[in-house]
Parts: sequence; C-alpha cells; structure tokens
Amino acid sequence: MSMITDRRDLDFLLYELLGAQELASRPRFAAFDREAMGQILDTAQALAEDVFLPIAAEVDAQEPQFVDGRVVQPEATGAALRAYADAGFFALPFAEEDGGIGAPWTLYTAASGMVVAANTPVSNYAFLTIAAANLLSAFGTESQKARFFPRMIAGEWFGTMCLSEPQAGSSLGDIRTRAVPKGDGTFAITGSKMWISGGEQAITDNIVHMVLAKLPDAPAGSKGISLFVVPKMRTDADGTITGPNNIALAGLNHKLGQRATTNCLLNFGESGETLGEMIGEPGRGLEYMFHMMNEARIGVGHAAVMAGLHGYLYSTDYARSRTQGRSLTDRDPASPMVPIIEHTDVRRMLLQQKTSVEGGLALSLYCSRLVDDAASHPDEGARKAALSRLGLLTPVVKSWPSEHCLEANKWAIQILGGYGYTRDYPLERLYRDNRLNHIHEGTFAIQGMDLLGRKIGGDQGAALRALIAEMRDTLSEATPNAALSADAAALARAVDALEAAATALTGCADVARRMANATVFLDAFGHVVIGWLWLRQAAVAQAALAAGPAETEARFYRGKLQACRYFSLHELPLAVTRLALCESLQSVPLDTPAALFDV
Amino acid sequence: MSMITDRRDLDFLLYELLGAQELASRPRFAAFDREAMGQILDTAQALAEDVFLPIAAEVDAQEPQFVDGRVVQPEATGAALRAYADAGFFALPFAEEDGGIGAPWTLYTAASGMVVAANTPVSNYAFLTIAAANLLSAFGTESQKARFFPRMIAGEWFGTMCLSEPQAGSSLGDIRTRAVPKGDGTFAITGSKMWISGGEQAITDNIVHMVLAKLPDAPAGSKGISLFVVPKMRTDADGTITGPNNIALAGLNHKLGQRATTNCLLNFGESGETLGEMIGEPGRGLEYMFHMMNEARIGVGHAAVMAGLHGYLYSTDYARSRTQGRSLTDRDPASPMVPIIEHTDVRRMLLQQKTSVEGGLALSLYCSRLVDDAASHPDEGARKAALSRLGLLTPVVKSWPSEHCLEANKWAIQILGGYGYTRDYPLERLYRDNRLNHIHEGTFAIQGMDLLGRKIGGDQGAALRALIAEMRDTLSEATPNAALSADAAALARAVDALEAAATALTGCADVARRMANATVFLDAFGHVVIGWLWLRQAAVAQAALAAGPAETEARFYRGKLQACRYFSLHELPLAVTRLALCESLQSVPLDTPAALFDV
Repeated sequence: MSMITDRRDLDFLLYELLGAQELASRPRFAAFDREAMGQILDTAQALAEDVFLPIAAEVDAQEPQFVDGRVVQPEATGAALRAYADAGFFALPFAEEDGGIGAPWTLYTAASGMVVAANTPVSNYAFLTIAAANLLSAFGTESQKARFFPRMIAGEWFGTMCLSEPQAGSSLGDIRTRAVPKGDGTFAITGSKMWISGGEQAITDNIVHMVLAKLPDAPAGSKGISLFVVPKMRTDADGTITGPNNIALAGLNHKLGQRATTNCLLNFGESGETLGEMIGEPGRGLEYMFHMMNEARIGVGHAAVMAGLHGYLYSTDYARSRTQGRSLTDRDPASPMVPIIEHTDVRRMLLQQKTSVEGGLALSLYCSRLVDDAASHPDEGARKAALSRLGLLTPVVKSWPSEHCLEANKWAIQILGGYGYTRDYPLERLYRDNRLNHIHEGTFAIQGMDLLGRKIGGDQGAALRALIAEMRDTLSEATPNAALSADAAALARAVDALEAAATALTGCADVARRMANATVFLDAFGHVVIGWLWLRQAAVAQAALAAGPAETEARFYRGKLQACRYFSLHELPLAVTRLALCESLQSVPLDTPAALFDV
Repeated sequence: MSMITDRRDLDFLLYELLGAQELASRPRFAAFDREAMGQILDTAQALAEDVFLPIAAEVDAQEPQFVDGRVVQPEATGAALRAYADAGFFALPFAEEDGGIGAPWTLYTAASGMVVAANTPVSNYAFLTIAAANLLSAFGTESQKARFFPRMIAGEWFGTMCLSEPQAGSSLGDIRTRAVPKGDGTFAITGSKMWISGGEQAITDNIVHMVLAKLPDAPAGSKGISLFVVPKMRTDADGTITGPNNIALAGLNHKLGQRATTNCLLNFGESGETLGEMIGEPGRGLEYMFHMMNEARIGVGHAAVMAGLHGYLYSTDYARSRTQGRSLTDRDPASPMVPIIEHTDVRRMLLQQKTSVEGGLALSLYCSRLVDDAASHPDEGARKAALSRLGLLTPVVKSWPSEHCLEANKWAIQILGGYGYTRDYPLERLYRDNRLNHIHEGTFAIQGMDLLGRKIGGDQGAALRALIAEMRDTLSEATPNAALSADAAALARAVDALEAAATALTGCADVARRMANATVFLDAFGHVVIGWLWLRQAAVAQAALAAGPAETEARFYRGKLQACRYFSLHELPLAVTRLALCESLQSVPLDTPAALFDV
C-alpha cells in the first residue's frame, strides 16, 4: 500500500463528495475531465513515491549548512525538484495563456499534496515559487512578468516571500526594510529579513524574492508597506543574469523539523547596492499579499493534513503487521500474539487519526474547490458566495489541521511505541515537520482574530449565517435517515452551540472580551465544520451502501460511517463544551493581569 | 529568574499544600526539617543550573555514537553525573542503615526534579540507577547487596532495567531471554534486550543490569518471569572487577529526544557466557518489578511535569521581554510595541501551561507524599490508605502529565513563534524529550487498563470511593466560600460525572466494552484529580490572601486563584463531556472491525 496517499479516499472526496469532475464543464477546465485528472494524480503519486519519499530521511539528516556565506545541501533536494518541474507541476495551476497548464486549484491541491505528504520540506521550494509567481502574475508589469514568470513556472528559478524581520513577525506593520527610489524605476533595498524559507539555496541560478519594504515617506504601520521584486542575481531586459544583487545570507536557522527547507536571515544592501522593482502601487503591499493568502493558507493546512495522512497510513500498516499481546478474553499465554490493530485502543488512535486526516482533507479540498468556484463558476452570485465562504473558512483550513493533524502524528508515534520514537521510522520526522504549521503563514492566534474580527465581524456575520444555513440543510436531509440520525443529532447540537456562541460574541461590545475568545472559538468552529463535512461524507457513503456495492467497496463506505460516528461521539461534544465557554463571554486569560505570572 | 524551578511555588506545594514539614516528626525523617529540606533543594538547584542546564543543548546535539561495539559520548554527561553523585543525590532516598541519606521520597522528588527539568536525558542515568538499587535493596541477598548496592548509591556504578525485547514491549509475558542454572548459584543468560536506557555508556566501570528472564522450565506468560542481576563486568566476592561478562552492545537506537541517554539493544551470552544471579524467588520477577513501579511511574510523570515547567518558565520570561504588536484598542502604529504577555491569547497559553505544570507538580508531589505515608506513617490504617490511594493514582501521575505537559511544551513553542521552532532555544528539545513519557514505563493504554482493570476493578472501587469522598469533603469546605464557589461548582459537576462513569463502567459485564473506555476514562479522571488539587491550592491561596500578605505574596496567591478558575472553566467541562461518553458505554473503536481500516 502507498504511505502517502489513499487513492480510493481521494477519489471519494474529489468526485463523490465534491463533484470535481463537474469542473470540466467550464471552458477553461475542459481538458480536465476525470480521466485527465486521474493521469495527473498518477504522475504526482509516482513522483512522490519514487523521487520525494526515498530521500526524505536523508535530506532531513543532512541539514543544509552555512559555509562561507553560501548554502551546502544534498544534491537530492534539487534533483527531486527538477523532476517535479520537468513533469510540469510548477506550471500546473497557472493559466494556459500565461504559459501554465491551467489545472483547477482543486486538482493542484490534490496532486501536489502527494509530494507534500512524501517530503514537505523539499516540496516547500515549489510551494513558495508558485506563491511568488502567483503574485507576480497578478500584479507585476509585463516586463517584470517576462523576466521572471516563465522561469519560475518552469522551476528554473525559485521564488520566496520576504515578510518577517527579526523585530517584526506577526506585526508586519513594524517592518523596517527600506526601499529608496533611484529615479530610474528601481529602488535601493536595505534591511534584514528573517525566517525566509528558501531565501538562499544551492539549487537554482537565481532566486526571485517578493519583499515587503517601506518607501522613505511611507506612513507608519501597515499602510506604509509596499511590495518589491528583488532578485538574488540582477538580469538584463531579457532576464539574462548579469551579476549579483548583493543579498547576503547572514545565517541559517536550525529548526525542529522541515530541515531540508533552508530558512534564512537575509541582509539586503549591506555589502553593496541591492536593487528591486516595485510591484503595483505604493502602500498596497499587504493587500497584494492577501491576494494569495487564501491559497497559501490552504497550502499550509493541507501540508498539515498530508503529514497527518502519511502518519495515519504508516501506523495503520504497522498496526496490521505488528503482533503484541492477546485479546482481553484470551488468558492463555501460549496462544499466539495478535496484530495490535485487534486492541481496541489502537483502533481508537487510528480513528482519531482517520477523522482528523480525512476530515482535514475534505476541508482542504473543499476550500480548493471554493478557489475554483470563486474564480470560474459561471454564475456571478455563486462566485461571490464561494469567495465569501472561502474567506470565512481560510483561518479554519489553516489552523484546524495544524492542531489536529499534529495530534494525529502524536498518536501515530504512540501506535509504534518505542519504534515510533526512533528515527528509523518516519513518524517522528512528520511530527517535527508538522509542528511548524501552527506558526507560519499566520499563527493560531492570528487566525482566530482573522476569523472573529475580519471574517465574521467584517460582514456582520453574513458568511457565517450562510454556512450555518447550509449545515442545517445537510441536517434536514440526514436527520430522517436512520443510519445518520444519531450523527445528525450530534451535529445539530454543535451547530446550535456555534450559533449561540457567535451571537454572544458578535453582540459583545467589549472588543477585548470578544477577541479573548477568538482562538477557542476558532478551534471549536473548526470542529463543527469538520463535523459537517463528516456528516456529508457519511451521507454519500450511506447512499452508496444502499446500492449494494462489492465487499471491498462496502468496507470502505462502512469505514466512513464509523469515522463519522467517532467524530460525532468523541469530538463534537467537546466543541459544544468549548462553544458554551465562548457564549458565556468569560475569559480568565483576559482577567489575569501579566503581573500574576511573576516568578 | 530560574528556568528550571519556581521555588516560591515549590515551597507552596510542599509546605502550604502538602505539609511536607510534618514528615520531620517521624523518627526516620527527624533530620529533615524545613530548613534541612531547603538546603538540599538549594544544592539541587545549584547543580541543576550550574552543571546540568549549561550542557543540555550540547549533549543533545552530540548524540552518543556506536563505535566498535562501544559508546562514545560527551565527557560532560559523566562529569555532571559525578557531581550529582558526589553531592549525595544517588543516595538521597535510601535508608541510613543501608548507607543512604534517608530523605523522604517527597524531598527526593522535589530535589531531583530540578535536575530533571534542566536535563532529563542526563538525569536518567541516576533515575535508573536508583530504581535498580531500590530493587536490589528490597529483594537482593546480603552478598548481592554488598557487591553492588554501595557502589550504585555512590554513583560509582550505574544500573539499568532490562525488561523489553524486540518482540515483547508492552507484552512482557512473551519475553524469550533464558536463564539456565549452572548449579553453582549462577545462571547463564541468553537473549536480546531492547530499549535499554543506559544499557551501555562511557561513564562508569560497571553497569548493574536488572534483567527479566525465564528459567528453562518456566511456565508460559508472565508467571514464568524471574529477575536476575547481571553485571556488565564480573566481580569477585568483594565486588572487585575480574573481567567482562559478555554482554554485547548490538546497536544504539536513535531517538527523537532524550538523546544523551543511550538506548541500547543488548545481546546476552552471544559472544561468550553471560552470568547472572537470581534476585529473590523464581517466577516472581514481575511482582518484584511492581515493587518499584509506583515510584518509577511517579518519576516518569514528574519528568513530564519538569519538562513542562522548564518550558513554562522560559516562555513566561520570553513573553515579558519580547515586544510585538499593540493592544486591540491602540490603532496608532507609531506607539511602541507591547510585551507579548499583554496579548490575551499569550496569557491563555501561559495559563494552559501553568495549570498543567503546577497541577501536575501538585500531583507528583502528592503521590510522593503518599509513598512516604505508605512507608512511614505512624498509623497503620493511614499507611494502608496511602498505599491504596497511591496505587489508584499511579496510572494518573504517570500519564496525565505525559499528555498535558507535552501539550504545555507545544504552547511554549507557540509563544516564541518561529524562535520556539529553532534549536537556538530549549523548547523544541523539551518537546522532543517529553514525547517519550507517554511510551516508556507503560504506555498510555497500559495505564488506562491498569486504572480501570487492576486499580478500580481490583478492589471493587474502594480506593476510588475513598478519593471521591475526600473530594466531596474539599467541596463541602470550598462551596460556601464566595471566592471559591464557582470553582467548587465546576469540580462538583466533574466529580458527579466521574462517579457516574465509574459506576457505569464497573457495572458493565462486557469486559471488552468496559475496557474500550479505559484511556478516555483515565484522561478524564486525571482532569478531575488535577481539578481537585487546584481547588485545594485555591483554598490555601484564598486563606493566605485573607491574612493580607505583602503585594508580591498577594500576586502569587492571586495567580493561584486565577489558574484554578482557568482550569475550572476551560478544562473541567471537557472532562465532564468525556466522562459522559464513558458513562454511555458507547465505543466506536470497539465496534469498528480492523477490516474497515483497509486501504
């Protein structure tokens, strides 16, 4: 069996749950019928299993080194990425008229996810390049695009996002990097950028940095932020490299996980002039960044899901083959030991993983489908609704898997016991890699404030009400179905609790008290969303079972029903409890002054 | 401030909550009045901060290597342990008549915990040596004791516990190591032992292995297990080393964390005869092991607490000094950034850590006090009651901190953001180290079965009823107190839910269904126990506040009240929800056959 994808489940989610095959009815996606999608998924799976997975342990152990101001890293990292680029995956989500392959974002998410599951840190270089190319494509001039974009989507040059600085992580309004106009359309960039993934590497001839900086006369705060394209190597008008652009690698960060992704402190304009060009208009840098925020945050959440999936598949396989102990009713020590999957608590840990991972995957694919619908649904109202729903769910798809699929990795380790704690097995690496996802692209707390402040407060709860209404539609269909009524009842309680909590929070005039509940609310809201997607999965499975499928298929669908039941009984009530706390507007953290933490 | 101990809190727990100063009224502990205890704690703190903490990152990075069948490891590891031994800490908990220092176990736990907080993997060698010496002291012959015990409690030779084998981890009844009597009182030991912490090292001249093995005519299963002392080097009757005992280091396991502790695969009797001596009587090996199980499992849980404490103190200090962003009501980007502790969600993450860590520490010290009371309380009934309570709480003290103080480390990383994810800060190391505690000395699932099967099922719930009665006494005192009544109400709901769940589970005749709930029940029971200890802490704090202390003291006590409130509102309701699931006797994992996990 594959350790990085469950193709049966992927097909279920893509086609049976989300109807991704319908996208081919749109002219821009006409080439992407189910057969074509399957071929691309096959190619991605082969690359993931044959190229990315076999080197995952090696590139983790051989962490990139900082030697004489340069990066030394294993050849295998670049070789895998070249294979990925050669197969067209850097170009996959970009429009055909721009030289891309024009695939739906849904397909891009599903296909790239296999490579992410196999080897997140190596895949990151592609993820970042695609994000940077996305920005350039949307806001760059024709000249900027001509020099950089084709090389980026060919995987010839990689891209980065240079946002954070040592003193400004979550607080981007406080960046200090300066861009002084030279009068010829270029800008002299000076400053330090921290946490730059792929900021320097030993793979490509050039690196295209997307840099947030401030003009000399910029207003304070985030309104003063502009966006610049700043290549590692200067180029002429054709994009031919002419010489270095004086971006110095000041050091590499040594991380818990994701070690094959270099993470850099870069100094701009320190050892000579660093030139950049502005992207778009001054003062709109953060706004442009937000253009690709939905996709980027889906990507982070999806990476958390994929690490969780790898761990789930690995620990499932192990649980079926490792023997240990006997059943509770077999007291005969001479009887053979049983596979540990026969122990109920092992199956509990598998169900915990399955519900988080397959629930999280349903969410990241659903959000990817919203990206496609927002961009290309034939109906304008549907496009707007998709964009609104996507905005609402972006903090959830980013943070819920970052929490619960990290937990899934924890339980995967537990199933292997001591073995899971060693570096001879991939689980400890997945656990280390996955821990990052709560931090980058906006921390857990930032996501909570985005949800409660911007996404619910910003439209007076309209997007949330629309979602709740759709959840109630799902409940109306499921409740009369005997096989689903218990799950529907559990979800109904959770939806009621969500609505009550949201009403209390949005009605609270004290912004500090309201926002003090943001993270707890975000996590519980995520549970309700995942519970809804599980009930939808169960409804599809139940309908398929009613048609009397073959036994293998029936087992698959029964597995879906049991997972939904697990989530309904074990998880949704916890969300109800947390939402009741939010509804009460009590916040001990708010009411505990900093001085009480004195030691 | 110290990063490894909060002496004010330790004093609060030892003296104000648990009355450890009363132990000095017992003749064997007469020397350990509060002043003497304070001096020992001072010495431990100095060793922890000056010797163990400064090398923690170095010995983690320089993982022990397997070279030509031997271990190569940093000198610093042995040097720290020699300093610890020279200060008398290996001898601390042993009776004076045996050459020990005779300290109460409560003091030993508190003092050794500082070294554990600073550097768990180095401290492990002492922990294991003390556990092995404890066994030898209880069950060894005078000759065995004479040769090994004094050298072990001097830290001259270390000890190990050799239980697991590659095919037998949790299922010890299935070990295959054999002990064949030579007719001269010695036994030829053959077999492989896996996961042996400290099984080989470059520190001491000899290693005293406590080995589980089976006689040739032993019955199958755990009844056939005997215990043997098997030294790395053979000795004469004086204990002088005479030559090697043919125990081969077959390999070192490479772990996620706790890297400075060697973890070995050992082969006995492969390259020549390995001789051992039986400890006690044949077939009683597991029973002897259980003699020190309570203390050992307190030690594991306490280690989890100590890693959590280190992370809590570190992230608190960071949160007070790191500036980032502004308050929600300050929209002026020109105003200075605030320390992140001013952000409510950071304080939420600190409270989450504080409640887990200080709650866990209250539990491990309470259980240590039970060890002392079980051994030396002047009243026989009190001794029995303490032993019963200790047995009931051992699975909790082992597993609750392993889960929730690992989570605490997760949130400590989160407070530091990207910095927390790097190896320049200790938090990622603590997180890696702490992940082991759920696995060794009995997994989470094993603890659940111990609690529900042996500890509650074994005495028909008597120990649980006694604990619940004492909890209700605490509630009776707290409920009328206006400052505590909300917390008391939250705990009362949790105690009711605990009682109902326990009644349903013990009344369930279907053993598979009953035990299917064991892990969930264990975790929720742990929450109720911790909630009880928090209410007791709050009651002490409230009484102290009523006396009008100085402002610094008042802040400390108010911090306790806020932490109790946080646990009452944020955590106890989750336990109520989980206990309701147990009470329902529903178990999706039990009802999900293994085949449904087919991929």
